[in-house]
Amino acid sequence: MSVDLETIVSLAKRRGFIFPGSDIYGGLAGTWDYGPYGAELANNLKNLWWQMFVTERDDVFGVDAAIIMNPKVWEASGHVAGFADPTADGRKFNTMFKTNIGAGEEAETTYLRPETAGGMFVNFKNIVDSMHPKLPFGLAQIGKAFRNEIAPRDFIFRAREFRQMEVEYFIRPNEWEAHFEVWRQAIQAWCRAIGLASDQVHELEVPEGERAHYSKRTIDFEFDYPFGRKELYGLAYRTDFDLQAHGTASGVDLSYYDEETKERFIPHVIEPSLGVDRTILAVLCSAYTEDELGGEKRVYLKFKPAIAPIKVAVFPLLKNKPELVTKAREIYQGLKKELGAVVFDDNGNIGKRYRRQDEIGTPWCLTIDFDTLGEQPELKDTVTVRDRDTGQQTRQPVSDLISYFNNLLK
Amino acid sequence: MSVDLETIVSLAKRRGFIFPGSDIYGGLAGTWDYGPYGAELANNLKNLWWQMFVTERDDVFGVDAAIIMNPKVWEASGHVAGFADPTADGRKFNTMFKTNIGAGEEAETTYLRPETAGGMFVNFKNIVDSMHPKLPFGLAQIGKAFRNEIAPRDFIFRAREFRQMEVEYFIRPNEWEAHFEVWRQAIQAWCRAIGLASDQVHELEVPEGERAHYSKRTIDFEFDYPFGRKELYGLAYRTDFDLQAHGTASGVDLSYYDEETKERFIPHVIEPSLGVDRTILAVLCSAYTEDELGGEKRVYLKFKPAIAPIKVAVFPLLKNKPELVTKAREIYQGLKKELGAVVFDDNGNIGKRYRRQDEIGTPWCLTIDFDTLGEQPELKDTVTVRDRDTGQQTRQPVSDLISYFNNLLK
Repeated sequence: MSVDLETIVSLAKRRGFIFPGSDIYGGLAGTWDYGPYGAELANNLKNLWWQMFVTERDDVFGVDAAIIMNPKVWEASGHVAGFADPTADGRKFNTMFKTNIGAGEEAETTYLRPETAGGMFVNFKNIVDSMHPKLPFGLAQIGKAFRNEIAPRDFIFRAREFRQMEVEYFIRPNEWEAHFEVWRQAIQAWCRAIGLASDQVHELEVPEGERAHYSKRTIDFEFDYPFGRKELYGLAYRTDFDLQAHGTASGVDLSYYDEETKERFIPHVIEPSLGVDRTILAVLCSAYTEDELGGEKRVYLKFKPAIAPIKVAVFPLLKNKPELVTKAREIYQGLKKELGAVVFDDNGNIGKRYRRQDEIGTPWCLTIDFDTLGEQPELKDTVTVRDRDTGQQTRQPVSDLISYFNNLLK
Repeated sequence: MSVDLETIVSLAKRRGFIFPGSDIYGGLAGTWDYGPYGAELANNLKNLWWQMFVTERDDVFGVDAAIIMNPKVWEASGHVAGFADPTADGRKFNTMFKTNIGAGEEAETTYLRPETAGGMFVNFKNIVDSMHPKLPFGLAQIGKAFRNEIAPRDFIFRAREFRQMEVEYFIRPNEWEAHFEVWRQAIQAWCRAIGLASDQVHELEVPEGERAHYSKRTIDFEFDYPFGRKELYGLAYRTDFDLQAHGTASGVDLSYYDEETKERFIPHVIEPSLGVDRTILAVLCSAYTEDELGGEKRVYLKFKPAIAPIKVAVFPLLKNKPELVTKAREIYQGLKKELGAVVFDDNGNIGKRYRRQDEIGTPWCLTIDFDTLGEQPELKDTVTVRDRDTGQQTRQPVSDLISYFNNLLK
């Protein structure tokens, strides 16, 4: 189903996902602050990406480079000369944020990185020298990048401060087509893992005239946002452009000696580039659902459990019955210790609590009632587990809850 | 034991922990890039902090605010007027990095945040409105901050770009002494969790004349770095200074209505402030050990297993015996799937591989030899597990390895 952007922006603020940056001061255009559920959602996505693209692989090494780099990096990459947008009056405007580093005569103008890739290319040699990797291998990084967009817009889609998850995958030049295809499938697998349906993500082959001059193939992965079909991810074969440029500009030899072929050459690069914030917006839009349950309209976020900020909410049926609250607290503590992202809520009636968790996207709500305490002896030490998507309730033994949820989270 | 800083800097670069920022361009003073093991070490520390101070608690909410904030934030906090260091010629120099946001007539001068705290205070009202927390409660954030230090020095200790892990804990004013004590103990527990011995961390009560004017009590937690005893963490009772200042400057009411006492007031704040990079340096210095093993000198990093970048290294005894390599690969894949941070190494003789893992701080090395394959039938399907700290080797059944390591990692 399609949702308008205002609805998402409003829900995100009301429910503690995303607030305008510097909100009490009237905001600052193009900046956004993540609240508790937005921060958890981002952490879940970043951790899943790191797991799939760094930890589970043998051939990718994580790095975390500085945001402020030597300005020569951006001269060599072409960003100082060419990273420009036309302003309203037709003049070119470089969208890198400038700043001065150092004091007095030693002060030097530099830039906040406009992309995370530079931090990987300048560390190519350090990684080769310290880790001795064999081709093909990749460097991976999650981090912030900054672009002084003339017209930041569309919520967190085009912000001035944003986060990227990128791999620079170094290969033998004659193997680029096979690696490109493997990475194309890796991005598809990622989309499935976070719950974006294959009919929501569209692959656009970027034609030659529209690609960067050094790229021999680029695919844009586009998503149907409320404001149109727009770029979510990019996959580019960048040839040896970056290492050549940085090698020449720095005077440092960035060639690689391939033990297997006994050749020395500059590796070529495949770059899968993913935006964290664009992912969050896609996931919010994709998860947003309105339906009717028990004759009442409701809104819920149909997150895949793996990325949901909260996995389980625990409720005592009534807050003024100490025996219910005590039992609910005990069950809550046990689940929280094992699953982490578990909340306790005794505020308002059960219906209100369900609505709140639906809008946060919590897959399961668990209610402790008088039957849990043994009012009906055959239901003693069982609780009601309510499924977010169907609204259906089942009765589960307390002793099985951890394995029950662990199985569902697999 | 004490180690000199050059030794740590050299090991950190050689073994892929930390490189100078923009290294191939001659660096950029005060910036550092984290390589694969440094990035993993940082991730482990950040994840452990988030687990202890956000996930495991009911009363702390995570946030992730923008680095570029509205300049009024830093006017209200006093940073624009007062955040200055004297330069060599005696003039005052504001150490906030300036940048312009927006283009043309709409361009505005602002700053990179010099601390993460501001991002929490400006979101106080958003959190109260969306999460409805009861006092006492905290906001927590991990993120980068920037200070244009006139003389960056001492490796990652005084860098121009660094990471903080901070909580702003909001309390009733008359309860500050009790909460301060609880947070003091929480910092001590954190130090134990990451392996800093209590005799390495020193609590310094900051006397009245040296505290910020609004702080009624501050403790500096100092560590014995190679360059002297220096601040590692800070714990401060900041009264209601920050919320008062931001409330006045923004014109937004930042008071809180306490359901329990039926009073409306500005909460007071306890702030435990931890630096990620200072923690990494403390942990590296604390873990660095030289000893003799089998008559040879060696260096190892005695990381607590919970924070070690790699938990287990898997070696085939010889790389030119396919049956050993195949078996080792199989065991490696099984362990990696369960434990994540596992590496495979068949490069060079076993002694060289041990030395490498010792310097990375890997707690356990596991060797697959001919007995694993059944050369001595009673040792079939067992492997050698070598302990990093003692060098002692024991024989373990392959089928028990996952539970064996999971127990040791608890």
